[in-house]
Amino acid sequence: MAINYQHILDSICEEVKDLLPKGKVADYIPQLSAVSPLQFGIAVYCLDGRTYTAGNAHTRFSTQSVTKLFALALAFSREGDKIWSRVGREPSGNPFNSLSQLEYEQGIPRNPFINAGALVIHDILAARFVQADIALLQFMRMLAREPGLDFDRTVAASEHQTAHRNYAIAHLMKDFGNLHNPVEDIIYGYCRQCSITMNCVELARAASFLSNHGSIPWDGTRILDYSSSKRLNALMLTCGTYDAAGDFAYRVGLPAKSGVGGGIVALVPGELTIAVWSPGLDAAGNSLAGVTALERFTTLTTRSIF
Amino acid sequence: MAINYQHILDSICEEVKDLLPKGKVADYIPQLSAVSPLQFGIAVYCLDGRTYTAGNAHTRFSTQSVTKLFALALAFSREGDKIWSRVGREPSGNPFNSLSQLEYEQGIPRNPFINAGALVIHDILAARFVQADIALLQFMRMLAREPGLDFDRTVAASEHQTAHRNYAIAHLMKDFGNLHNPVEDIIYGYCRQCSITMNCVELARAASFLSNHGSIPWDGTRILDYSSSKRLNALMLTCGTYDAAGDFAYRVGLPAKSGVGGGIVALVPGELTIAVWSPGLDAAGNSLAGVTALERFTTLTTRSIF
Amino acid sequence: MAINYQHILDSICEEVKDLLPKGKVADYIPQLSAVSPLQFGIAVYCLDGRTYTAGNAHTRFSTQSVTKLFALALAFSREGDKIWSRVGREPSGNPFNSLSQLEYEQGIPRNPFINAGALVIHDILAARFVQADIALLQFMRMLAREPGLDFDRTVAASEHQTAHRNYAIAHLMKDFGNLHNPVEDIIYGYCRQCSITMNCVELARAASFLSNHGSIPWDGTRILDYSSSKRLNALMLTCGTYDAAGDFAYRVGLPAKSGVGGGIVALVPGELTIAVWSPGLDAAGNSLAGVTALERFTTLTTRSIF
Amino acid sequence: MAINYQHILDSICEEVKDLLPKGKVADYIPQLSAVSPLQFGIAVYCLDGRTYTAGNAHTRFSTQSVTKLFALALAFSREGDKIWSRVGREPSGNPFNSLSQLEYEQGIPRNPFINAGALVIHDILAARFVQADIALLQFMRMLAREPGLDFDRTVAASEHQTAHRNYAIAHLMKDFGNLHNPVEDIIYGYCRQCSITMNCVELARAASFLSNHGSIPWDGTRILDYSSSKRLNALMLTCGTYDAAGDFAYRVGLPAKSGVGGGIVALVPGELTIAVWSPGLDAAGNSLAGVTALERFTTLTTRSIF
Repeated sequence: MAINYQHILDSICEEVKDLLPKGKVADYIPQLSAVSPLQFGIAVYCLDGRTYTAGNAHTRFSTQSVTKLFALALAFSREGDKIWSRVGREPSGNPFNSLSQLEYEQGIPRNPFINAGALVIHDILAARFVQADIALLQFMRMLAREPGLDFDRTVAASEHQTAHRNYAIAHLMKDFGNLHNPVEDIIYGYCRQCSITMNCVELARAASFLSNHGSIPWDGTRILDYSSSKRLNALMLTCGTYDAAGDFAYRVGLPAKSGVGGGIVALVPGELTIAVWSPGLDAAGNSLAGVTALERFTTLTTRSIF
Repeated sequence: MAINYQHILDSICEEVKDLLPKGKVADYIPQLSAVSPLQFGIAVYCLDGRTYTAGNAHTRFSTQSVTKLFALALAFSREGDKIWSRVGREPSGNPFNSLSQLEYEQGIPRNPFINAGALVIHDILAARFVQADIALLQFMRMLAREPGLDFDRTVAASEHQTAHRNYAIAHLMKDFGNLHNPVEDIIYGYCRQCSITMNCVELARAASFLSNHGSIPWDGTRILDYSSSKRLNALMLTCGTYDAAGDFAYRVGLPAKSGVGGGIVALVPGELTIAVWSPGLDAAGNSLAGVTALERFTTLTTRSIF
Repeated sequence: MAINYQHILDSICEEVKDLLPKGKVADYIPQLSAVSPLQFGIAVYCLDGRTYTAGNAHTRFSTQSVTKLFALALAFSREGDKIWSRVGREPSGNPFNSLSQLEYEQGIPRNPFINAGALVIHDILAARFVQADIALLQFMRMLAREPGLDFDRTVAASEHQTAHRNYAIAHLMKDFGNLHNPVEDIIYGYCRQCSITMNCVELARAASFLSNHGSIPWDGTRILDYSSSKRLNALMLTCGTYDAAGDFAYRVGLPAKSGVGGGIVALVPGELTIAVWSPGLDAAGNSLAGVTALERFTTLTTRSIF
Repeated sequence: MAINYQHILDSICEEVKDLLPKGKVADYIPQLSAVSPLQFGIAVYCLDGRTYTAGNAHTRFSTQSVTKLFALALAFSREGDKIWSRVGREPSGNPFNSLSQLEYEQGIPRNPFINAGALVIHDILAARFVQADIALLQFMRMLAREPGLDFDRTVAASEHQTAHRNYAIAHLMKDFGNLHNPVEDIIYGYCRQCSITMNCVELARAASFLSNHGSIPWDGTRILDYSSSKRLNALMLTCGTYDAAGDFAYRVGLPAKSGVGGGIVALVPGELTIAVWSPGLDAAGNSLAGVTALERFTTLTTRSIF
């Protein structure tokens, strides 16, 4: 029996309403703190092209750490397994911006989804492209089939002004020899990367190649080979949701990547991608309503990978 | 087209031969160090009852940490989500026997598969059963459909004599109030638990309820409900292979639990379980040939969960 | 001009009165928590034999960690610099009962005044004497010129029942090969050691050999050679007051050793020893009124070593 | 009987000769690595003005971390105890450039002699003076009675180019709100501070106010009050020689401050200051021959503070 996705999304939208005021909107820059927490959007993109939406699925938001997924895909597609000499593949077991672990492990970040790892990935892109941030934006425009995607320059400037911890991380890696470009360039480009805005529909579509074993569903363009695509999904599952990856796998059971803007993108291999957005965060920095929505989705559809 | 499992297992058996001398047999007790590293066994148990084997699939070995999986299943089936007030669900990001993290996190182990967590699970069983170790043995006999399973009392005695670090862990948790039974009892019972011997066929069969969404395939006995079964699989994926869970998910892409005796059990939800054994370990404490065999298995069968 | 010690002690006694209710009495065993915090004693022992006292200077209290000083002196006098292969000489920079640092530094305690180090010292004594605790008691009786010193067996028994963290520390060191006797024996003996009771007069007298460059002032018996005696004083200064050694050196400026029973012994090399006691502790576990009293003493007498 | 200092210094000079090739010259910048390790100088400055020298006592060297002592004295003399709200007074128990501890302790450095603490002190000076580095240079010229003291601009520039770890530390403190001036300014000024060159005679003279209870011996100018001067000495003893402060107190028994240029200044309160220099370092980053020379000095003169 076919699953009625529209019905499920509508139900979830209703169910999470009470949670919206309970999350805590990121407040380290004014642009994020000004977003109303009473918003929730959800979009499902099936590999046959059908798209289902509910709530604020067409409102753009700051994707923030969700961009780490696309940056990794771009770097991985160009450099292959070479990237693993500079960044690990293990869950961090620590808050996402910890310097202690980075120092203990000699400047090699635990995985590409903590800030340190994302800075290394940006550094790899910066060695490959004239402008890493623009190369990434163009890659994401192509994946989302949406040439209008863009940086939010006000957000990027604000992030840059408060990027002290990322500077600390970058300089520490520089000291260990694991950052090849100038610190200033990488931080600037990374702040731009994090400022890219998308809505749920665009985000679900942009990640669809990962549920399609590496190729874009509508035209077959291969981004990653079959095996690499599966491996990237594995990384999302073990490392994609900050220090709550174990709990997320337990509750939701899907590969996913989250951001402090309140967005999360997840996927059911071979079937669909799903994007949720709600700005209020839980203690681990993931969207409070978003995680619950995904948990309800896998329960109602029985579509966990386990 | 049906997969020819027998052919695949035979190929794998051939492929890993060169790896056998390269692993390092666990040497902290004489009984483990005396095992020849030049052994390799593999068994697949399909949910329809078909079983495929190759190599030393019928040789019993010391299951060690693999028993943590069955102890958790038993505790979870009896106590449900209550257990999560005493043990977490996050990857540890540290060697499996670290006290630092346990101290920092106030005596709450990161997950049930590190030693600290397994001791808490044993403590929970000890509060529920007259003899936790015997209750667990009987549970595993039932799951493996093999009444002959037993402790190896010599191994248990040896483990007990060198259990200083586990004593340290248990006393630290006692200090934090997270161990309810006497330390001595828990360490003794846990050493017995770890000494249980099985072969690959028995191990693959014993875990089959986890790939069958919680019920024993041959008689339908429900061990865990659908959701709990999936969640236990998620835990295996994020935490089941010591500090190499991320790498294992990346390379193999299946929920699994390993032990220093060289055994690993893994599963494809809804299809099959697979057990491998080879005593030589890699740097992370997982069977060197075993991990490679599983990686080959998912590549040859394209049966990863991602 | 001669210092009027009696006048100074009387003044101090008056000055600290308001502080007495503000300290927090140790409460991990009933015997310590039952002691009234409104007590304060102080005694000065000059090397020429003159003794000055004020307040409850003749009330016996539980010396606890102060005994680590005498245990170290006994071990050092018998084994010399050999002991430094098993315990360090650096401040810990961490709470006195931390396991993290001990694990990171492979079972070698930072110094003989944290619990781990004191257990190693007890282990060294246990290898040398038939009964380490009794040998230490007799040593302290001789130093204090008081054959009536004794264990408080009720305190020792209570300590033993709640010694989980010390058990954890001892087992961890056993695992690293840095504890030679059975864990049980060392913990039992160490709990007895900590239970020895003294009053301020006895304590000041017992430490007088350390301000007399190693020999007992009244009969010239040499306990330590000149150089060793100075070195033990240096250790007291850098490591004697838990994680507050830097602050204590800054405020008081004398070598000292404190205990959770509220006692502190300090010394002015070549001149005198001083013992204070008040059960209320500050956040670092040192006697609140005691530290202030010593700070006032060095200010009023200008007798700091700096 | 008067001590024959000249004889003692000559003896020491002879004794340490064999050690000179065994130290390891700092090599993180070319200017330091180019210095010949076969140099050793020593100077004693008595409070009555007599000066004794031996070896290369008149050769200038890079003072590096020794300047932290003078920067602290300047900041302390102007701001008093207010500085302790921004930097602690405890030994670090960790290598001098660790970020882990700084992160764990929320951006408050353990003491003013680790790099993080010295950056905070520089930040305090930068808020007080138009140019902190020049104010410090002038202060040191006055203390050393030597208007020719100066920065080594080549060293400062080299330090600045490799200051990644100090940048990381400064940005981390900025993130915690414990750095008020721009990171770039503080790092630049701090590199200049570290580049100041002195010889042993100048260094011994410059520190003489600290052995004279706070006032300059030749003209009575008060730099610090009696109590503050003693307290600064206490800090030198517990924190002045990196992670080897405990060992240094044990072996030498004098307040001291060392630098990676191979210089160490120490003092006997009320009597004299002593400066040694030899570029070869031990594992803790202190001058190998220098520490041994000071140990011999206190043994031969029996002038330890203990």
